[in-house]
Amino acid sequence: MTAHPVDVVSTAPNDAAADPYDAAVGLSATARALYDRGWMPGTSGNISIRSGADAVLITASGLGKGRLTSADTVLVRADTGAPVRPGSLRPSAETCIHLAVYRAFPAVGAVVHAHPPYATALASRRSRAGGGPVRFTDLELIKGMGRSYLDSIEIPLFANWREVPRIAAEVGEHFARPATDPAPALLIAHHGATTWGADLAEASDRLECLETLCQLALLIGD
Amino acid sequence: MTAHPVDVVSTAPNDAAADPYDAAVGLSATARALYDRGWMPGTSGNISIRSGADAVLITASGLGKGRLTSADTVLVRADTGAPVRPGSLRPSAETCIHLAVYRAFPAVGAVVHAHPPYATALASRRSRAGGGPVRFTDLELIKGMGRSYLDSIEIPLFANWREVPRIAAEVGEHFARPATDPAPALLIAHHGATTWGADLAEASDRLECLETLCQLALLIGD
Amino acid sequence: MTAHPVDVVSTAPNDAAADPYDAAVGLSATARALYDRGWMPGTSGNISIRSGADAVLITASGLGKGRLTSADTVLVRADTGAPVRPGSLRPSAETCIHLAVYRAFPAVGAVVHAHPPYATALASRRSRAGGGPVRFTDLELIKGMGRSYLDSIEIPLFANWREVPRIAAEVGEHFARPATDPAPALLIAHHGATTWGADLAEASDRLECLETLCQLALLIGD
Amino acid sequence: MTAHPVDVVSTAPNDAAADPYDAAVGLSATARALYDRGWMPGTSGNISIRSGADAVLITASGLGKGRLTSADTVLVRADTGAPVRPGSLRPSAETCIHLAVYRAFPAVGAVVHAHPPYATALASRRSRAGGGPVRFTDLELIKGMGRSYLDSIEIPLFANWREVPRIAAEVGEHFARPATDPAPALLIAHHGATTWGADLAEASDRLECLETLCQLALLIGD
Repeated sequence: MTAHPVDVVSTAPNDAAADPYDAAVGLSATARALYDRGWMPGTSGNISIRSGADAVLITASGLGKGRLTSADTVLVRADTGAPVRPGSLRPSAETCIHLAVYRAFPAVGAVVHAHPPYATALASRRSRAGGGPVRFTDLELIKGMGRSYLDSIEIPLFANWREVPRIAAEVGEHFARPATDPAPALLIAHHGATTWGADLAEASDRLECLETLCQLALLIGD
Repeated sequence: MTAHPVDVVSTAPNDAAADPYDAAVGLSATARALYDRGWMPGTSGNISIRSGADAVLITASGLGKGRLTSADTVLVRADTGAPVRPGSLRPSAETCIHLAVYRAFPAVGAVVHAHPPYATALASRRSRAGGGPVRFTDLELIKGMGRSYLDSIEIPLFANWREVPRIAAEVGEHFARPATDPAPALLIAHHGATTWGADLAEASDRLECLETLCQLALLIGD
Repeated sequence: MTAHPVDVVSTAPNDAAADPYDAAVGLSATARALYDRGWMPGTSGNISIRSGADAVLITASGLGKGRLTSADTVLVRADTGAPVRPGSLRPSAETCIHLAVYRAFPAVGAVVHAHPPYATALASRRSRAGGGPVRFTDLELIKGMGRSYLDSIEIPLFANWREVPRIAAEVGEHFARPATDPAPALLIAHHGATTWGADLAEASDRLECLETLCQLALLIGD
Repeated sequence: MTAHPVDVVSTAPNDAAADPYDAAVGLSATARALYDRGWMPGTSGNISIRSGADAVLITASGLGKGRLTSADTVLVRADTGAPVRPGSLRPSAETCIHLAVYRAFPAVGAVVHAHPPYATALASRRSRAGGGPVRFTDLELIKGMGRSYLDSIEIPLFANWREVPRIAAEVGEHFARPATDPAPALLIAHHGATTWGADLAEASDRLECLETLCQLALLIGD
């Protein structure tokens, strides 16, 4: 008689937004996972989940992402980014970029922003070469960016203005223009990558695919 | 008196196919392990185990590989790829490639398909340079590809057709041709790598060796 | 009714210096974490926490950093580096560099020294190209080095003298010169990187940001 | 009142050879740790501990290193490499290389052989460039190779003969020649790296330092 091997149940919630506590746990678990990959060094990076029609739950500013717990999140108003309740934690300094994405895409339920090295480096290289979107051609992982197979996908590239609201304004303007099937991602030169999806799992999955696409682009070369 | 250090018992099953539940646990544990390495970003990749003479158990389509559990697998017919029992989960969209391998090699018990970065990049580089098999020479890890030491090994390279059955057909045609000691692996340009073996452990071990061979080829250069 | 997903509480102390035992646990936990990243291969690297006005707790010399426990630390005098109490453990051979940093910056509570590969390689490349500080421009992660956004940051680069006290003396001389907002970090050519902060978490966060800045510089190229 | 942070006790034995069971646990724990780093893909790599004057305990042949347990080791005679007791497990096919090292260095208590990618690639590059030892200059981690600081260290490079005993014979001949303070390591072109030390921890620490030295050499360039 042989014992069955142990079945490991994932702790990553698939529908973290269903409950405020679950949402906060999902944000902190995802932050720690991205930190463990090296994509949120120190206190960098920020993640959010849409909470009802008028609010967004986002990671707090200035805390080490490898040590984040569910208490380290702040509920902010979707229109202004101001905290819904006064408290000691400040929302991420990049909250306005998240809000620009939620306004542009009503079906989006979660936004992830991190500093994965290959995506950041590719964005900087493209910026130095004159800017414009980063285009991937032929690679199978394009499918992982939330669409059926296409011959290519373009990820918009934004400048890293010192004033974060200026980045958010450019993101908002970009996505206000009509577009066919825009990619669920953007790059900021010298800074990092942002992805989004219906829920936190989808947004995070897409960040992994984007980073691998960028790694492949750098490994394959021109 | 000193306490003995703790002995850790591996949870990876060595003969997962002996029992349907074990097989499902083995598939999901292997998927999570390959996800943790970064070789199955997001929902990408798929793994299967032969189940008797007429069926194959394969990972379901569209689920995050880092969150996979034993429930996320589908039993399909080995001849058509259709689910044996109706259910809500769809089998992987690349089931037909797995079936082509099982048909070509009756002794194969498991097939692993993932997107390891060095193998994928090397396949794409070779494709751009005109295609043909990827050949490794002299490297000791050739032994890890399931054969005694040889001076070289050739891994066949396939095009990444938009229609997956066309890839599967080309894989089937390739292995239908008589060959001496064919490698237990194939590469798909711009896509990824597939390996197989008598059981899941052997198929997975070979994927690790193939990825390291590709990493070494890129590090050593021409 | 659905169970809440598990909330994981971080074991990394945020204010490890508040208690001597906590400080020792913090040092060993941080050493193991940096070892797991590959930044403290074998017995290399050393970490310290300021302990009151006159002493510093530092990791012991010659012990494997992946096996470090809270017992593997030594309390030394801040003026001489000699152990406060006689014992079998010797303090790190690089204690004098830590002390030079504590003397230069009274607000610093912790110092981390490790051998992260990109920082070490970039320091060596800069040394071969004639030396002088390593300068980062535009990159968002400059913010992670403990300052508001600046267009650039300069990390001083020191030579790796065979006699460690000579390195410490040059570090002390460098920081004794008046400077506006010096970076909380230094590089030693062919050797590694040292960062500091108000507490262990801040010093360690900054090391992660510095290593990522160096990785980006190498990936982006000239 | 604040709870003390959790102190994690390492499970890696520091003196695994003191007891046969501890030695077997140490071998398998080290194998799994090196597998987790990606340095023992599939079933590759082998580790041994000296067991008394006449025997060596070594990992068994052909088993996945990520799944190794204490039962997967074989006691062999130090003179012939034959198993001390008949059994179903075969000792590693590279046992003879381990024995050559033990014969050359009576104080050595453990030998580790793995396929770390940077060491393997550097060995192959050096072989292609005409062979001869791999020399490291100036790098601080030279200290981690078991010696006081030197301006340089030379790691002997061996050819990867198809017949393993021929490699072992060349290793034995090399170390039979008088040498001042030989490095506790060797490289085999297209194959991997071997290190040794007084105990398993020291041998393993040195492998980490050697791999980092090789990574730095490749990152720094010529």
